[in-house]
Amino acid sequence: MTQMTQPIAFYFDFSSPYGYFASTRIGPLAAKYGRTVKWHPILLGAVFKATGGMPLTQAPLKGTYSLHDFGRTARFHDIPYKHPAMFPLPTQLAARSMLWLQQAAGEEKATEFAQAVFHAYFANGVNISEPEQIASIATGLGLDALALLEAANSAPVKERLKQEVETAMARGVFGSPLIMIDDEPFWGFDRFDQIEATLKNGKI
Amino acid sequence: MTQMTQPIAFYFDFSSPYGYFASTRIGPLAAKYGRTVKWHPILLGAVFKATGGMPLTQAPLKGTYSLHDFGRTARFHDIPYKHPAMFPLPTQLAARSMLWLQQAAGEEKATEFAQAVFHAYFANGVNISEPEQIASIATGLGLDALALLEAANSAPVKERLKQEVETAMARGVFGSPLIMIDDEPFWGFDRFDQIEATLKNGKI
Repeated sequence: MTQMTQPIAFYFDFSSPYGYFASTRIGPLAAKYGRTVKWHPILLGAVFKATGGMPLTQAPLKGTYSLHDFGRTARFHDIPYKHPAMFPLPTQLAARSMLWLQQAAGEEKATEFAQAVFHAYFANGVNISEPEQIASIATGLGLDALALLEAANSAPVKERLKQEVETAMARGVFGSPLIMIDDEPFWGFDRFDQIEATLKNGKI
Repeated sequence: MTQMTQPIAFYFDFSSPYGYFASTRIGPLAAKYGRTVKWHPILLGAVFKATGGMPLTQAPLKGTYSLHDFGRTARFHDIPYKHPAMFPLPTQLAARSMLWLQQAAGEEKATEFAQAVFHAYFANGVNISEPEQIASIATGLGLDALALLEAANSAPVKERLKQEVETAMARGVFGSPLIMIDDEPFWGFDRFDQIEATLKNGKI
């Protein structure tokens, strides 16, 4: 068995309920097996444009089911959830903010920010596409909100997100959450049992 | 809590790998909680025509992942699996055969036939769209293969399958496997943990 030392790659869209569920579990699960996690915010809209996918809730029949499953799955796993009135919504600003924070404030602070954004949106119904809301979340974490918004709207950070999405797709990422353990992909919060087995015993 | 006495409804397409996985588990799980299962063969092709869905393996990126996930999930759950060379394939004949057997030979024999069809296709690579193969499976179970094929190609049984698919969709069925416990739908082999919790403790 090859030694497993790369960080676990966690791809997600801030507007994805199953991505949010995964965000509440991936850190502790990785830590249990001595691994770290690299968070990769992506844009499902851009991915769907390339792959012909569509938001779950917009599919006939499956849409109704999905809305029901979001709440039931949250209850089953004891995760706070209130389906947001505005869903899905644009997540460029949240994603760019996180990318900038990863460089400017470090992975730990950026992850804390991402968790706060997810929680604001899916537990408290905050419209995370609005700059004022992103600013408020940043301020609450002791970050410079003005500097954050300026950076998140700058050309280099916009370009960086675009490249992140392209790199992710080149790696085979097509949904959220998608978790890569040493190039082994796992799609969906449903795959956490197989993720844990892989971390524990190696490839299934 | 209302008393739960209806059979569990198990909707599946004979060409669905996750439907096959579910078929190996649903009976014992139901029995553990004193419940029976009513098997409902449907045609995903007809469902997708109405809902705009498409076979998993034909979706860009998701297709490659799915092929990998079929095998990995089978290994994880210790289910025999060899991805069939011909995939997906037409399942009208298998579905109509089962519908007829449910009436002519009883639920138990019909379920035995369905399990044999699933196993032939997903463990042994048998082309279950061919009448000779369906006949051979039927003969192996002590059934009258000639009578079965004749019935499966008769107008009333064809009409019956059409109505079954329409009834399923009217009930919200959009994929395979889809399991209904007292009108509570669960989509996917991934939901067996929630299915068991529901059977044990009632609605989640």
